[in-house]
Amino acid sequence: MPRYALKIEYHGQGFYGWQRQNDLPTVQSALEQALAQLEPDLPSIAAAGRTDTGVHGLGQVAHCDMRKAWDPIKLKGALNYHLKPNRIVVLDCRQVDPDWHARFSAIGRDYLFRLVCRAAPVTHDAGLVWQSRHPLDADAMRAGAAFLVGNHDFTTFRSTMCQAKSPIKTLDVLDITTHDYHGGQEIRFHVKARSFLHNQVRSLVGTLERVGAGAWPPERVAEALAACDRAACGPVCPPDGLYLEHVRYEQDVFSWP
Amino acid sequence: MPRYALKIEYHGQGFYGWQRQNDLPTVQSALEQALAQLEPDLPSIAAAGRTDTGVHGLGQVAHCDMRKAWDPIKLKGALNYHLKPNRIVVLDCRQVDPDWHARFSAIGRDYLFRLVCRAAPVTHDAGLVWQSRHPLDADAMRAGAAFLVGNHDFTTFRSTMCQAKSPIKTLDVLDITTHDYHGGQEIRFHVKARSFLHNQVRSLVGTLERVGAGAWPPERVAEALAACDRAACGPVCPPDGLYLEHVRYEQDVFSWP
Repeated sequence: MPRYALKIEYHGQGFYGWQRQNDLPTVQSALEQALAQLEPDLPSIAAAGRTDTGVHGLGQVAHCDMRKAWDPIKLKGALNYHLKPNRIVVLDCRQVDPDWHARFSAIGRDYLFRLVCRAAPVTHDAGLVWQSRHPLDADAMRAGAAFLVGNHDFTTFRSTMCQAKSPIKTLDVLDITTHDYHGGQEIRFHVKARSFLHNQVRSLVGTLERVGAGAWPPERVAEALAACDRAACGPVCPPDGLYLEHVRYEQDVFSWP
Repeated sequence: MPRYALKIEYHGQGFYGWQRQNDLPTVQSALEQALAQLEPDLPSIAAAGRTDTGVHGLGQVAHCDMRKAWDPIKLKGALNYHLKPNRIVVLDCRQVDPDWHARFSAIGRDYLFRLVCRAAPVTHDAGLVWQSRHPLDADAMRAGAAFLVGNHDFTTFRSTMCQAKSPIKTLDVLDITTHDYHGGQEIRFHVKARSFLHNQVRSLVGTLERVGAGAWPPERVAEALAACDRAACGPVCPPDGLYLEHVRYEQDVFSWP
């Protein structure tokens, strides 16, 4: 069966995450229902990142196997037609080798987290950002973040539900940038790793928010990491500001001409 | 009665514009209902710009008269409390002289229009941008826009419903900037004038889109303007991408310490 890689954007609100669940709306289900309009009885699709309820996709990647050979541009258009009115779109579609795998071929995941600091509730970005009602100290958060980059046992920063065999991961990037935001400030976390533990990004951001608020000295992040104890983690932040921004592969199939 | 200036942000979707209308949800009604929770039988509020259905506010300005003297910070907080769950917030509140008027003291209005060019429907920005499914030529649009800046009879670019006495206005700025957008490009129109005619910005942007698409040569904008004929206008674009960004006064009351 010919295999196609799909680059997918979605609004996480209204979906119980990526993964198919009985009777609940999920991104995977919506995509599989759209595929079923094109060909019956197709295999399940696989994605690079199984995002949680409320988490957004900017550059999620999945693959699907079709019975007939599709022009990738037509397949993209047909899927977007049948995906309506779901807030899910296929941004790009390419035919790939049958042994290429959206999840297992991936060599890195890039997440973006948007945190808005202002007193008044957000209006246009409701559901799209996490909001702090108080200013946060970005430099203090950067000092805390520096302890987290590298190869560590991230037991403190993973959900007790996490099914990964090992808590040891390499965090390649945890950059914090500040941006103008109407009536306040936006803080963006750029987080990159080969792979992540369950709730790892939200655990890291929720902990660093405590540092930015002055409730934690930056060094307490290092102590929490060294404790290898979930109880040492700061509050896990909500999913609203979290975006799976990009998935990296040895060869970027979407950049092929 | 003490008078307060309010800087207001709102999401235009779900509101039939700014102005109060019987039984229809409008931004003015929602604000007046919130004020009525604080003090009964207050006078109507006045705003700098009467935005249409679906048009957004980033920096709309209104004023209200209260019976008792309020701490402006407490008034802002009380209004934001009672405005929930409407997607309207008061960003700033200042006491002003009783002869200061949100509309008549204003010396300029700045509008922003967001136009996204990409094939796939937008997900996160649905209702917040106008979308073109095709790329547009920003330089051609700039060439067309150049004919519109200055003092002109804008009869071509105003709604037949417009109640302004004169169609002659001075357009101070019509700048076009381009920005990265996920899987496409965003084109922003920055439009500034002392005041605008009804539907003027949407008439200008809808016409310039025709230039960007190559359907109109830039010079046709000059011809349309000179015709002083509504029938010479391009299509009026939808309200989704339009934001009242800022209102200018001789003295910026919101910058007072």
